Amino acid sequence: MTDAPSPLIEVRRGGTVESVHRGVAVVADAGGRVLHAWGDPGLLTFPRSSLKPFQALSLVESGAAEGLDSAHLALACASHRAEPFQVAMVEGWLARLGRPESALVCGPAFPMGEGDLVDAARAGGKRRAFHNCSGKHCGFLAAAAAFGRPEGYESPDHPAQRHWMAALSDLIGREASALPRGTDGCGLPALAMTLAEAAQAAARYAALALPDARREAAVRRILEAMREHPGHLSGRGRPTEQVVAATEGRVVLKEGAEGFVLGFVPERGLGIAVKIADGATRGKMALFATVLGRLGLLPADRAAELARAVEAPVLDSNNRVVGEVVALPLA
Amino acid sequence: MTDAPSPLIEVRRGGTVESVHRGVAVVADAGGRVLHAWGDPGLLTFPRSSLKPFQALSLVESGAAEGLDSAHLALACASHRAEPFQVAMVEGWLARLGRPESALVCGPAFPMGEGDLVDAARAGGKRRAFHNCSGKHCGFLAAAAAFGRPEGYESPDHPAQRHWMAALSDLIGREASALPRGTDGCGLPALAMTLAEAAQAAARYAALALPDARREAAVRRILEAMREHPGHLSGRGRPTEQVVAATEGRVVLKEGAEGFVLGFVPERGLGIAVKIADGATRGKMALFATVLGRLGLLPADRAAELARAVEAPVLDSNNRVVGEVVALPLA
Repeated sequence: MTDAPSPLIEVRRGGTVESVHRGVAVVADAGGRVLHAWGDPGLLTFPRSSLKPFQALSLVESGAAEGLDSAHLALACASHRAEPFQVAMVEGWLARLGRPESALVCGPAFPMGEGDLVDAARAGGKRRAFHNCSGKHCGFLAAAAAFGRPEGYESPDHPAQRHWMAALSDLIGREASALPRGTDGCGLPALAMTLAEAAQAAARYAALALPDARREAAVRRILEAMREHPGHLSGRGRPTEQVVAATEGRVVLKEGAEGFVLGFVPERGLGIAVKIADGATRGKMALFATVLGRLGLLPADRAAELARAVEAPVLDSNNRVVGEVVALPLA
Repeated sequence: MTDAPSPLIEVRRGGTVESVHRGVAVVADAGGRVLHAWGDPGLLTFPRSSLKPFQALSLVESGAAEGLDSAHLALACASHRAEPFQVAMVEGWLARLGRPESALVCGPAFPMGEGDLVDAARAGGKRRAFHNCSGKHCGFLAAAAAFGRPEGYESPDHPAQRHWMAALSDLIGREASALPRGTDGCGLPALAMTLAEAAQAAARYAALALPDARREAAVRRILEAMREHPGHLSGRGRPTEQVVAATEGRVVLKEGAEGFVLGFVPERGLGIAVKIADGATRGKMALFATVLGRLGLLPADRAAELARAVEAPVLDSNNRVVGEVVALPLA
């Protein structure tokens, strides 16, 4: 194991550094060993939506995903941008479940893209279906019905929540229901853990180091959905899709709010946890791409190119490039 | 002078720390002495819109502000939210100047408030008048005409830009036109300087430590406008207004993008520069309020109350409070 200083991400304006983000990046294997840590692997934080691939186990293992295609499984793991195709899938899924949009616990939101936002404002305003977690909530609605408790899926004591927390307990080697708990932006329970634990959970998931064949089949199905449909996971052409394309599917990933990214590397049995310490979205994908280069999952020049491509430049209000976001080389 | 570690601002979810911001806070007097520094007073960055009170000297000293009321002077210093009263003032000012909205160099934007954004989307979309700097741009349009060069006010070589840069040079004791330069979000020149220099400039401005009576009259007028109309400077009920109200006008302030706040304390002849190192907006006002308490400009309990009041709590999408933003006590 190497232990190294926090990675830095510079925000430059006209060539002068204006702001600096500190990151933490941890790589673990399925044995729970921390192979690399830049910054403190013991940092406790919330992986937020990066836990969705674990939460989707409630959907798949409850039997509620039978007959669902892989695009819907990806949507259940998504922090989407409410692009029209994603909203249409949510609407179709709700119709299939026979539930109204108001059954989604996630609150009303606007789509993230500017054009979609304008269309939504003109069409009537915020909707629960536009919330970036609405696919996950469809998954929980489906699982809740399959568990025989259609209502109240947001409670930490609901079987649909208890199920994935038990699976996570196996992966991190301690009781997930005892982890520090908060409430996520969408109203569901959020759990805190160390970066090392998050990376270990991802490694065991990626390596299929799992208790039984049933879970192995479920995880295989979810990982395959994330690899097949990275555009569903976030949005078309977004960084998640760029990373999967650049690695030709050898790396799949799920981002979370407050600067989190969780990477799954099945062929090497590795998990990668990245956090921007201050919670910024900016910089996290450049740092993730930089780690891929360091691990030899991409050639150095391709990793550097990807790190540039996944970060939007600093623009002025006339859309001229006036700065850049740059992940410095890892120590 | 005290020299102390960087201030920390914690973002907590359900009582657990999720993310941490580091700040820098510097207090200087009109003699250029750094009286207090938490973090590195030599940190170089862009004060961004915190420079607007200096930029407004071009408006006032060109003679273009004759006949303008103090609300318009405050709007020229504003980073506003395009609330309807602010947009109406911009429209009225353009009409008075006989210029179309397209003469504003700042790019099209949406209002910041959600209701105003929805109204704007329904009414036709982004507008230059909605840009948070449109008041400043009206000021520069007016100044440019008064300087006899109505076009091209965005150029660093335009007399309207050269004028305020010369005034700033007096305040920081070196040639402002030689400072590292970038382009601001609104398309105008942005200058970088150290936190100590920014605090010194604010102190000399607040103390009226100025080269002549003409500048003294101009600065008095601008400071008075900022004190009288803090709601114009940002938006009604926003943190800027809360700080001015809490200090009964003894402190005026101007925030900038990327985590900057500049404070002016005329009665003590002090300047206060605050920067969140990572550029976050979150936390900067709590840190500023905490510094006011430390300087005795507010009693400790009032400063703590203000620090809580100026930071929005962490909400979920159903508007339930699920966390908080807390400035830790200064070392």
